[in-house]
Amino acid sequence: MKDHFNELKALLNHSYAPYSKFRTAAIVTTDQGEFKGVNVENASFGATICAERNAILNAITNGSKQFKSIEIISSCTRKDIVPCAQCLQVMAEFFNPDTTVIIYNINGEKTTYKFNELLPHYFNNEQLNHQ
Amino acid sequence: MKDHFNELKALLNHSYAPYSKFRTAAIVTTDQGEFKGVNVENASFGATICAERNAILNAITNGSKQFKSIEIISSCTRKDIVPCAQCLQVMAEFFNPDTTVIIYNINGEKTTYKFNELLPHYFNNEQLNHQ
Amino acid sequence: MKDHFNELKALLNHSYAPYSKFRTAAIVTTDQGEFKGVNVENASFGATICAERNAILNAITNGSKQFKSIEIISSCTRKDIVPCAQCLQVMAEFFNPDTTVIIYNINGEKTTYKFNELLPHYFNNEQLNHQ
Amino acid sequence: MKDHFNELKALLNHSYAPYSKFRTAAIVTTDQGEFKGVNVENASFGATICAERNAILNAITNGSKQFKSIEIISSCTRKDIVPCAQCLQVMAEFFNPDTTVIIYNINGEKTTYKFNELLPHYFNNEQLNHQ
Repeated sequence: MKDHFNELKALLNHSYAPYSKFRTAAIVTTDQGEFKGVNVENASFGATICAERNAILNAITNGSKQFKSIEIISSCTRKDIVPCAQCLQVMAEFFNPDTTVIIYNINGEKTTYKFNELLPHYFNNEQLNHQ
Repeated sequence: MKDHFNELKALLNHSYAPYSKFRTAAIVTTDQGEFKGVNVENASFGATICAERNAILNAITNGSKQFKSIEIISSCTRKDIVPCAQCLQVMAEFFNPDTTVIIYNINGEKTTYKFNELLPHYFNNEQLNHQ
Repeated sequence: MKDHFNELKALLNHSYAPYSKFRTAAIVTTDQGEFKGVNVENASFGATICAERNAILNAITNGSKQFKSIEIISSCTRKDIVPCAQCLQVMAEFFNPDTTVIIYNINGEKTTYKFNELLPHYFNNEQLNHQ
Repeated sequence: MKDHFNELKALLNHSYAPYSKFRTAAIVTTDQGEFKGVNVENASFGATICAERNAILNAITNGSKQFKSIEIISSCTRKDIVPCAQCLQVMAEFFNPDTTVIIYNINGEKTTYKFNELLPHYFNNEQLNHQ
């Protein structure tokens, strides 16, 4: 799989994070190609959307059905950054348990998870529909 | 301004709305070009994102700074559909009071608003930052 | 109608706003009595909930069906603070067009709106259900 | 620890779930006592709030600092229902890794988790603040 670190790092310039100064960017690889997202904050913090969700939304807009991986970068040097659980909920709708989640820090150090290592138990459409 | 009705109607096919069956799509026109979005629902309804926000997020990802208009379609025949106020909050971060909001029903009937007709008073970064 | 300014000001102490430092509190008056809320922020900003929604949620938990008014305070001296539009969307589900929205600044200066002055056009259950 | 099944089941009557018909309720036990929540849906699905978050918000409104447990019920007979990850994100702000999460189905069958079994890796304030 092609490494998107340089592309992700450049994409941080489009992050809109005036409140937290915590910039993030993401690229998902799907059956329809690759799609990007950045975090987009809001003065009403609850209206903020993370880079991960933004990239997934763009993929759906373009007709993606299968998600192979998501790669994420943040503007910090910590190695233990993970997607927030709001994003995990959106992933739960579209990802498989073994979809790859790759996280880079700003120095390019990389951590890899399978999706179900981040969210072992889901609430998804199977649960909602089988009442 | 070019009319995007046909493009919006085709975009409804990518809407992910298995729970409400209410499909929507949106196109924003910005200084960086045009960007699309569809609504993306979630089994946990609160994780749902509307087409309007999806399109705006994609525009920000691509470096847009100025929003000229948003055009929206829904899969129904009513003429009084408006963006939900969650989307208005995201618009409030980026739109001007007179940014054009165009809403089509599935038959192509069109309603036009200025943004501040939909949200006359905003909570935005000016209010947050001047405590 | 009883004025809740002092109670609201005291309630600001329970606001959880470590990221924005922008504290808010709200009290709704309903057919089941009065219910309170504060804003509750989150490290993932998008998971933040405002005081207005918190108070409405508490009212619903307690069986409220009719909302007479909402009173809101923020920890700043500006007189032009209004509820964010995410909160307006939750109000749109439960409020009447003429439900009273009262906003205090920290000095007790008061601004009053009818709900439909803040959100003249709604997306609500009538629109969703009549596809 | 006192069992709240009967109280939770009664609380389902206050759930506002006209769109999904999936009713939920929750009770958190904290240093300030017990606090309740129900799910509150919205015609704009993204403005929906789950019972778990509603209960936690009410606890914060009342000055809670320590969360001992959350008990949750849903209106279905499945035994594998878990909180959505949006709620896990709000829990991540306030819960310890070993805070108890108890889930009942409508028949009173009970499943118990430690919080970190549901969300092994968090994004929280430690990560946000140490950029």
